[in-house]
Amino acid sequence: MSMKKQTIAVDAMGGDHAPELIVRGAVDAASAGISVLLFGSEEKITVILDRYRSDWRSLSLSIVHCSQSIGMADQPGRAVLKYKDSSIVQGMEFLKKGMVGAFVSAGNSGAILAAALFQINRVDRVIRPAIATFLPSVVKENSSFLALDLGGTVDCRPEHLQQFALMGHAYVAVMQEMKSPRVALLSNGHEPYKGSAAVKTAYDLLRKTASLNFVGNVEARDIFFGHADVIVCDGFVGNIMLKTAQGTVKAIKQLLANSVQSSFFSRITLGFAASTIKKAVQPLDYTKKGGALILGIKKPVIVAHGSSNQEAMFHAIMQAHRIAHDSLFDRVNQEIAALLLADLAGDQSTSKSKVEREMVPD
Amino acid sequence: MSMKKQTIAVDAMGGDHAPELIVRGAVDAASAGISVLLFGSEEKITVILDRYRSDWRSLSLSIVHCSQSIGMADQPGRAVLKYKDSSIVQGMEFLKKGMVGAFVSAGNSGAILAAALFQINRVDRVIRPAIATFLPSVVKENSSFLALDLGGTVDCRPEHLQQFALMGHAYVAVMQEMKSPRVALLSNGHEPYKGSAAVKTAYDLLRKTASLNFVGNVEARDIFFGHADVIVCDGFVGNIMLKTAQGTVKAIKQLLANSVQSSFFSRITLGFAASTIKKAVQPLDYTKKGGALILGIKKPVIVAHGSSNQEAMFHAIMQAHRIAHDSLFDRVNQEIAALLLADLAGDQSTSKSKVEREMVPD
Repeated sequence: MSMKKQTIAVDAMGGDHAPELIVRGAVDAASAGISVLLFGSEEKITVILDRYRSDWRSLSLSIVHCSQSIGMADQPGRAVLKYKDSSIVQGMEFLKKGMVGAFVSAGNSGAILAAALFQINRVDRVIRPAIATFLPSVVKENSSFLALDLGGTVDCRPEHLQQFALMGHAYVAVMQEMKSPRVALLSNGHEPYKGSAAVKTAYDLLRKTASLNFVGNVEARDIFFGHADVIVCDGFVGNIMLKTAQGTVKAIKQLLANSVQSSFFSRITLGFAASTIKKAVQPLDYTKKGGALILGIKKPVIVAHGSSNQEAMFHAIMQAHRIAHDSLFDRVNQEIAALLLADLAGDQSTSKSKVEREMVPD
Repeated sequence: MSMKKQTIAVDAMGGDHAPELIVRGAVDAASAGISVLLFGSEEKITVILDRYRSDWRSLSLSIVHCSQSIGMADQPGRAVLKYKDSSIVQGMEFLKKGMVGAFVSAGNSGAILAAALFQINRVDRVIRPAIATFLPSVVKENSSFLALDLGGTVDCRPEHLQQFALMGHAYVAVMQEMKSPRVALLSNGHEPYKGSAAVKTAYDLLRKTASLNFVGNVEARDIFFGHADVIVCDGFVGNIMLKTAQGTVKAIKQLLANSVQSSFFSRITLGFAASTIKKAVQPLDYTKKGGALILGIKKPVIVAHGSSNQEAMFHAIMQAHRIAHDSLFDRVNQEIAALLLADLAGDQSTSKSKVEREMVPD
């Protein structure tokens, strides 16, 4: 088996539907021309491969056997240190050594992040990494915004949020070829005085960050309506935002299902409308979206949704390939490093001019 | 005009649709037999009343003229101190003096809270008040859960969250005649080790609070699915949760509208299904729900949604009347005071038994 930088490492054991749907999604990606390396129980993976696609050996698809796996309920830091032969730790090791171009897992996101932090170097000057994902905007077809952090750093200081803003700017600037993405802070009101103590201080920091197009606070009810290209929050709040949106979509589907069951007339009309509704809500469907990316580390790691199905895994692998391809991720990281350096220089000049001002008598 | 404790004070000048729809909603409530006192510009209110219901003088409806009003963008604390003759400060003053049974406003929620804190006494031992509202649960028809805090206290210490849990328990126990409501913490995972530093410490506090039926953490994607009767979070996170849910519903409506416009076939099928969908999503519609209640102060203040329309205001006034009626709110506060006292006693006995344990040689 030849291993190239364009090969994508996939954690076959992570996620609610592992290994069955993860492996199938990987086969679909391999069928689309991607070189895939599956990490996990060779026995289990082989059974699924043989059943799903008997000629899988003709694809660019191989298995790296791992004797352990990390469960969704395992405590991240501990699990990563304890299970050295787990699919997450092994996949990350291949990424570290440059044997693959990216690593994708739908497993325990805390453990993926812990492994990434332990095994992959951080980009220069990055204090904390952030998990970032594109979410749909409904004002224009195929428009989106980048949300971060979605669980990388749960307790954030204002300077963490400022770095997230710079990392988000870099990612959107490179991936969407946007010169000056609009960056906003998620807060409980658009007024500058709204927010937790950390958010209010971050507001002041971002306002002073010369390289950013900071557009102020955005309220959670407006996130889907195109007010910003990058929305910044701490990892706890980001998780609440993302999961509330998912839960609300699920709740509406449930309400529609209840209503269909309760009325014959509804059943007919909704039967007609079902495909239209499904198509309409599609932009909010994570299975089409791939996964989230860890920003601030030197190699690309995709954190796929824990309940990723076959299609979601396929898209996450395609996304990983796109990011690894053409050194896009390296360009994002160069941009991040440059922005953090520029901000540091900006800070120094600010301090300097402040000192100078203070030396001038009134 | 005779003023009774059952009269409801309404801020006619607060909210996106003030004074027009606020006044109309108040007329509807008065028509349903509620005694209403409107606070705001007498001239503006009279014009609306005369136009909407020329015989309004036959209803139990009066105006208290206020020469000032507080805007949505005004900085809460400052505005409340500055605008002494505003509808919020005046309405709150009537509540303080016992001239009305409750105060309802769809205005600047920070200002309502600030006025409540300055003018109304806190319940004994309450450190911080919380804004609480019932949200729908989709597992059973007409089922709901209480969410708090939704913006009362933005930066919370663990002991604040513990008090919110006790206040939420008391409110649900009294209002829904539930003996042992299930209380959960909103977190970024159901595992006890998940959460911000404050949430993790609150988890330990709640686990040890004898009077609570603490069921652990709940994830944001599960809030609508009946896992708990009370869900506790800080005011910043609560705002993000509530507004994300509202924004998601709005986004889905927008996507459906886009999809209807783009296809003639969809227009027909969705036309058929529209009423079914509207009915299905109704439990998520805040206009039917009334407003949020400030818990932890001695008199009932309802914070209605800023974009409350006529129907929403009607429901908020009916809710205020229900709470003021039969001294329900007083019973909630007696329960809160008793729980906080019991917890204090529990703490002391815990410390005492701990001391005793430590004095016993192993």
